[in-house]
Amino acid sequence: MDPRMVAVVERDGRRDEVAVEEPLEIRVDGAALTVTMRTPGHDEELALGFLHGEGLIDGPRRAGPTEDLAANVVDVAGPLARDPGARRFYTTSSCGVCGRGSLEEVAVYAPRLGDGPPVARALLAELPERLAQPAFARTGGLHATGVFSADGELLVLREDVGRHNAMDKAIGRALLDGDVPLRDRVLCVSGRLSFELVQKAAVAGAPILVGVGAPTSLAIDLAVDRGLTLAGFARGGTVNVYAGAERVI
Amino acid sequence: MDPRMVAVVERDGRRDEVAVEEPLEIRVDGAALTVTMRTPGHDEELALGFLHGEGLIDGPRRAGPTEDLAANVVDVAGPLARDPGARRFYTTSSCGVCGRGSLEEVAVYAPRLGDGPPVARALLAELPERLAQPAFARTGGLHATGVFSADGELLVLREDVGRHNAMDKAIGRALLDGDVPLRDRVLCVSGRLSFELVQKAAVAGAPILVGVGAPTSLAIDLAVDRGLTLAGFARGGTVNVYAGAERVI
Repeated sequence: MDPRMVAVVERDGRRDEVAVEEPLEIRVDGAALTVTMRTPGHDEELALGFLHGEGLIDGPRRAGPTEDLAANVVDVAGPLARDPGARRFYTTSSCGVCGRGSLEEVAVYAPRLGDGPPVARALLAELPERLAQPAFARTGGLHATGVFSADGELLVLREDVGRHNAMDKAIGRALLDGDVPLRDRVLCVSGRLSFELVQKAAVAGAPILVGVGAPTSLAIDLAVDRGLTLAGFARGGTVNVYAGAERVI
Repeated sequence: MDPRMVAVVERDGRRDEVAVEEPLEIRVDGAALTVTMRTPGHDEELALGFLHGEGLIDGPRRAGPTEDLAANVVDVAGPLARDPGARRFYTTSSCGVCGRGSLEEVAVYAPRLGDGPPVARALLAELPERLAQPAFARTGGLHATGVFSADGELLVLREDVGRHNAMDKAIGRALLDGDVPLRDRVLCVSGRLSFELVQKAAVAGAPILVGVGAPTSLAIDLAVDRGLTLAGFARGGTVNVYAGAERVI
């Protein structure tokens, strides 16, 4: 665990530990693109995973801090695959849609997922327990994403105060490892399953996403649309499957 | 509970209910400002609370859906108090800061909070149990924010798939009720305590914020800086106080 992830505070007259949250500016070729609140550590992975999830890069890039290491800036080598303003969800252009149509308006393009590995229901139910979270154990304040092999081996684990950041970091690591698209992998998250997390998983080519918490309606819609297996409430030995049940045996 | 908050889905061959997530476009005088993923219902409150938290309005405004009710658009009467591009956190301008300095870079201006009411530690610990969540009870997938009087009466309760949205809706309701600044109120959230939530509470003038989950380092820093009482891990009859302990008796 990166020691910068945890800070010591005083509360109720005693020492305690909390998760660190700080802004990170993501630059591309030196030009500021966005600022996110995140837990320090693995900033390059965060930047690469974020850019990949937005459809802005399609493979690993050089990335690193600027000369002033305390500046909370990560710079990624360009160019980008498309104009970052083109995704309507993050712009201020007109949206005005709902239901099925909203998928087209807010989604980053991702091809329909291939067959992917079959996975046992009992394994899906158990994966969250394999998300050993060292920084969460000390602070109770971090989300996690794990990249697992289809037989349940934990390959990558990343923690962050933001659930989206945790997944961006994990996918960024996989990008650097040459493991994207995540065709034969299972992604597991420590929390709820929003539209955004399904989108990030789909863009990374992961056929199966399981979470400890509840899915939203739009998360299920997107999973059905892209052919992704979506499972939630994985706890206490059981799991609910909301989409892509054909991969669950 | 607004029936649009919950959708029926089929999973594992049976009927189940999930929280609805859909995009909402917020317009000011007809011009698109931003799009957020939210649970439908109380859209006017969400828009007003969001704009207030960003320092863009300082009181209630007329707000409503556009003619096409299915369009997921809410239009708010302008003008705004300042240029929406001026907050650096939501823009793409340079940030490049960390630690104490980051507060100045990412925070919306909020005056230091006044004395506020004293509140019993036992009451703080108990408030989350008073956050009766009708839509969460059916879906397990919604965050909540409650506005409480200092003696623990629940005045406003709002639920949303997004924790920030739930607080925006609750503060938007209070704005419409003429209850902002929330000088004598206690805000209670169902989840963790991020920088953003402390900021929204401080801008709304709420002197006390308590949550079921963990605070982040920057949430504590901002609470100390603005004189806000911040309490977390309110569960099982106990609570941790991280800032502003002078109000806790």
